[in-house]
Amino acid sequence: MYKEEVIDLYSMIRKRNPLIHQITNAVTVNDCANVTLAVGASPVMASSIEEVEEMVKLADALVINIGTLQSGVFKAMILAGKAANKIGIPIIFDPVGVGATTFRKEKAKEFLRQVDVAVIRGNASEVDSLMGGASTTRGVDAGVVEISLKELAVKTAVSYSCVVVISGQIDTISNGTETIQITNGDFWLKSITGTGCMSTSLIGCFIGITKDYFLAAIAGTSLMGLAGEKAKKRLQEDEGIGTYKVKLMDEIFIMNGDTWKEEVQIHES
Amino acid sequence: MYKEEVIDLYSMIRKRNPLIHQITNAVTVNDCANVTLAVGASPVMASSIEEVEEMVKLADALVINIGTLQSGVFKAMILAGKAANKIGIPIIFDPVGVGATTFRKEKAKEFLRQVDVAVIRGNASEVDSLMGGASTTRGVDAGVVEISLKELAVKTAVSYSCVVVISGQIDTISNGTETIQITNGDFWLKSITGTGCMSTSLIGCFIGITKDYFLAAIAGTSLMGLAGEKAKKRLQEDEGIGTYKVKLMDEIFIMNGDTWKEEVQIHES
Amino acid sequence: MYKEEVIDLYSMIRKRNPLIHQITNAVTVNDCANVTLAVGASPVMASSIEEVEEMVKLADALVINIGTLQSGVFKAMILAGKAANKIGIPIIFDPVGVGATTFRKEKAKEFLRQVDVAVIRGNASEVDSLMGGASTTRGVDAGVVEISLKELAVKTAVSYSCVVVISGQIDTISNGTETIQITNGDFWLKSITGTGCMSTSLIGCFIGITKDYFLAAIAGTSLMGLAGEKAKKRLQEDEGIGTYKVKLMDEIFIMNGDTWKEEVQIHES
Repeated sequence: MYKEEVIDLYSMIRKRNPLIHQITNAVTVNDCANVTLAVGASPVMASSIEEVEEMVKLADALVINIGTLQSGVFKAMILAGKAANKIGIPIIFDPVGVGATTFRKEKAKEFLRQVDVAVIRGNASEVDSLMGGASTTRGVDAGVVEISLKELAVKTAVSYSCVVVISGQIDTISNGTETIQITNGDFWLKSITGTGCMSTSLIGCFIGITKDYFLAAIAGTSLMGLAGEKAKKRLQEDEGIGTYKVKLMDEIFIMNGDTWKEEVQIHES
Repeated sequence: MYKEEVIDLYSMIRKRNPLIHQITNAVTVNDCANVTLAVGASPVMASSIEEVEEMVKLADALVINIGTLQSGVFKAMILAGKAANKIGIPIIFDPVGVGATTFRKEKAKEFLRQVDVAVIRGNASEVDSLMGGASTTRGVDAGVVEISLKELAVKTAVSYSCVVVISGQIDTISNGTETIQITNGDFWLKSITGTGCMSTSLIGCFIGITKDYFLAAIAGTSLMGLAGEKAKKRLQEDEGIGTYKVKLMDEIFIMNGDTWKEEVQIHES
Repeated sequence: MYKEEVIDLYSMIRKRNPLIHQITNAVTVNDCANVTLAVGASPVMASSIEEVEEMVKLADALVINIGTLQSGVFKAMILAGKAANKIGIPIIFDPVGVGATTFRKEKAKEFLRQVDVAVIRGNASEVDSLMGGASTTRGVDAGVVEISLKELAVKTAVSYSCVVVISGQIDTISNGTETIQITNGDFWLKSITGTGCMSTSLIGCFIGITKDYFLAAIAGTSLMGLAGEKAKKRLQEDEGIGTYKVKLMDEIFIMNGDTWKEEVQIHES
């Protein structure tokens, strides 16, 4: 049972208010900043090569997301990542759309070669692609993967010595030794842009307050799933993804440990 | 009557879920991605010169929007545009604020010289400016144009051998031979940023599923107008553009062919 | 009493619809554009070095915000700032997170050395940092300042020969001679990203219609505070920052002079 340990993180994050440095993409940067505030942390989104090394030293965690990768910003990611490694600030890496182009594949692999990360979060085809798998991908959407989710999570966690989160209808989280699955969520989470990025940012907030990155990954991942589920239930028939996105942010903001404990669906293997 | 043909596109797009590659501006990129999801397509917003040629090959259509044009991104637009032309992927071009600066004028014309587009969408002063007209412009807002909308649309369509959409209180769409006008819409659509960009993205979604770009332009343009009209009707007195933007996205998401057919106002000449 | 003079600005801005050129950050650029529309002005967010000098000539005011500063964009800020100075277009400068890194400190000071500004707006630690103070900062959040707000505002206003707005629980505004404080607002304004940036944009809108920058600063600052207060009152118990942000934009949009006059809390010293 991880519930008792995770539940403490929800109250702790609001007390500690960690600073989360995020170098992310142009599409969802505003949502990532707001979700960080919603969970009780503070965002700083600096991405200039002239300042990321200094900025990351002020932070409790670093979020790296390659959603709209540019060469210049990639240099900043490497600089920030190395600086974070040097002083022990944990990093979460989101290889958005990594299977889609050679550029993303090479840069993602280069990042993981040069920088040690605490957590990798992606959908199944993205994680499979990091492992050199033959998964197909379609832009930044999930493709088809020929291996069980648990097997892929364990293998990737062992290979990169980190916690791995594979998001999807079922979320799979492994640290190489322990593996759990979460069945909260709603398929509408795929109907707005940025819910993957936001999940990464949420996990990034939790690795800023605990060294148990496996628990942090459970906390962040289940929060997005459960909020997505609860937001959907509050929609009227004539409402769509505009209102859904607003209510999703609301649900993350108002989530408390009691509700979470009651409704979260964590499955241990 | 184009209604029967257009109506099919609404069901088809949700079945086919085309991938729409968009190189757009920093202001409205999130809205463009969400509107793409709302209509039933998938967005990918890659804009790095190292990957756009590879990315566009995965796509069903390419959207180019110069709203916050930078030299580096312009190179990516040209690369993506040429790659799309080579393999027959249709392109929609949005010359945002083209009349405002020499830089925009030159780059817009250079793009249209080097790349064949399926559709151009802009407001009257933007389209007039592309044609070398003496229209005044004011930042990215519409200015005054000294020629009838229909005449301008036909002339531009012939000149660039593409479909032209002139957005405004009345939307005018021409392929050079046929010209129609749409009178749906609400003046509040001008009170939030990005409704022009979102219209371009919507048309971009439809050219990803049909080679009849004229019908695609009607489908995308009328969807934005009608959604803008319906969203306005659902507002309470104490609500403003915050709620309006949310409900606009809702209306695009929940639109179906029956409602569309009943309420759309297409005028043939 | 400044109320009678400020109240006129609210009706005047909707009539005059000033064009506000903004070179701002990637996180809140969409919100800044929408808040500009909400108050009755028009935004243009061009940031390319090739066009900012030409674009700013069309504008009634220039907003400079260093929230996600990059070297290339900084050059555009200097070019736009100098061009604005040459033809007398007023500038507001927002030194976001200036205390956090050497890069920001140097660039902020360089900007203020090369360009004359009408208004500086920041939180206490940012303004203190501009004055070489020993205030601590934490990313882009406010830190601790060892000097009274009024004293800091007056000192900074005199030093940079401009109006200074220090945002916080109490907003302090000084032109070096006159100093007022505003007590409207809600602590939730700190729970969404971009309310500082949006305040800067709002003041930027008002300096576009009056040469009395002190009054313009009061108008923009009090509008954000009052809207933040009113939006909070309209929230249901199960709503959070998602809905709050939507209603904040609504309140800015629907604000009129009568409501403003009745509820604004301006304190003269």
